[in-house]
Amino acid sequence: MSASKILVELFYDVVSPYSWIGFEVLCRYRNVWDIDLKLRPAFLGGVMHGSGNKPPGLVPNKFLYMTKDLQRLASYCKVPIQGPSNPFEAMFEKGSLSAMRFVTAVELHSPELTEQVSRELWRRIWSKDQDITTPESLQEAGEKAGLPADQLQRLLGLAISQEVKEKLKLVTQEALNHKAFGFPLIVAHVDGRPEIFFGSDRFELLAHLLGEKWLGPVPQETGSKL
Amino acid sequence: MSASKILVELFYDVVSPYSWIGFEVLCRYRNVWDIDLKLRPAFLGGVMHGSGNKPPGLVPNKFLYMTKDLQRLASYCKVPIQGPSNPFEAMFEKGSLSAMRFVTAVELHSPELTEQVSRELWRRIWSKDQDITTPESLQEAGEKAGLPADQLQRLLGLAISQEVKEKLKLVTQEALNHKAFGFPLIVAHVDGRPEIFFGSDRFELLAHLLGEKWLGPVPQETGSKL
Repeated sequence: MSASKILVELFYDVVSPYSWIGFEVLCRYRNVWDIDLKLRPAFLGGVMHGSGNKPPGLVPNKFLYMTKDLQRLASYCKVPIQGPSNPFEAMFEKGSLSAMRFVTAVELHSPELTEQVSRELWRRIWSKDQDITTPESLQEAGEKAGLPADQLQRLLGLAISQEVKEKLKLVTQEALNHKAFGFPLIVAHVDGRPEIFFGSDRFELLAHLLGEKWLGPVPQETGSKL
Repeated sequence: MSASKILVELFYDVVSPYSWIGFEVLCRYRNVWDIDLKLRPAFLGGVMHGSGNKPPGLVPNKFLYMTKDLQRLASYCKVPIQGPSNPFEAMFEKGSLSAMRFVTAVELHSPELTEQVSRELWRRIWSKDQDITTPESLQEAGEKAGLPADQLQRLLGLAISQEVKEKLKLVTQEALNHKAFGFPLIVAHVDGRPEIFFGSDRFELLAHLLGEKWLGPVPQETGSKL
């Protein structure tokens, strides 16, 4: 094996439940495979708009299938997903712009907490049917993630700054440069070339490419906070 | 384990390369898992129309990704897929209606050859960049599949009969009744309930549901004619 770990980037948005599955699986494999996992919080709305893609759930049969598919995957992958009571309102009307700006602020100024803040936001929208758009919601997620009160207030302020808005746009554009049309998008840098995987169902292929073993979505006790 | 095998239906169309992967993997696992595999040749165009779905390749970034994804999957799953030189013409302008009527005629009158005829048609469009719409093309595929000359002529005639047209519509409608929005569609009948899987990327989950082991896409020497 090479001396340095392979960089694996995960572009995601907490509005996307398949991203949550991809995120938890990769967080587990960070300790199993010889990879350097880099979280890239981005804005799914921008990727859909920039690629001209439409949400898959707009086709009724696909929406029905995805509901069932997510239920089965969540159970098998041990990610506590339970759809919001009104998924269309949660995903399309309320959306995730303020939440992803908050995660971006965390990533810029307290990157050691990006993982846990993201997880707490997913838990709100995709497990507890809670809001992720108001300052109070973001504050609660930040508190649960372990951000000290003063740091949290600073980050909530930064989340609406021009710097953070620009950074989120930049990372979203980076995903589009990799020809994204949805999330999660996994970019594995193998032999200096980016290999792109869309979705949370190509891990066996990713393992093959990395020269690692796929041991299922729950490879071992992971110490995650789920 | 139960005394009787679990019925697993595969709805497919030879115009769909992901269906080819699903088909070959399930044909291999027929000898590994305790299942009774039932091939259900159907018409993808009817499913797209009936569900209001649009072909994923119409979004440029998605088309680029699928091209790469198919290449990687084909190599990993050992299915000799090489896109047609003009995929839009092959898939949308020429389509697969006459091909799937021919497969339906085979399924009705020589079902022991449905598998091999389907495989030869996939090989034409998705491996050799050959036509699958003219009577000559269908004849060549039938010959390669091992149909005797007289039987082949009879089936080519039946392929344009009302009986066969109706049967193809019926099977396509059956897929739609399972809320299909694309192919492949896998229907596993577990404890009297149909469990639906779309695509060729849920085999690990299917194995889990069946109480079987997923051993990767090429579990052993399979004796397939690929």
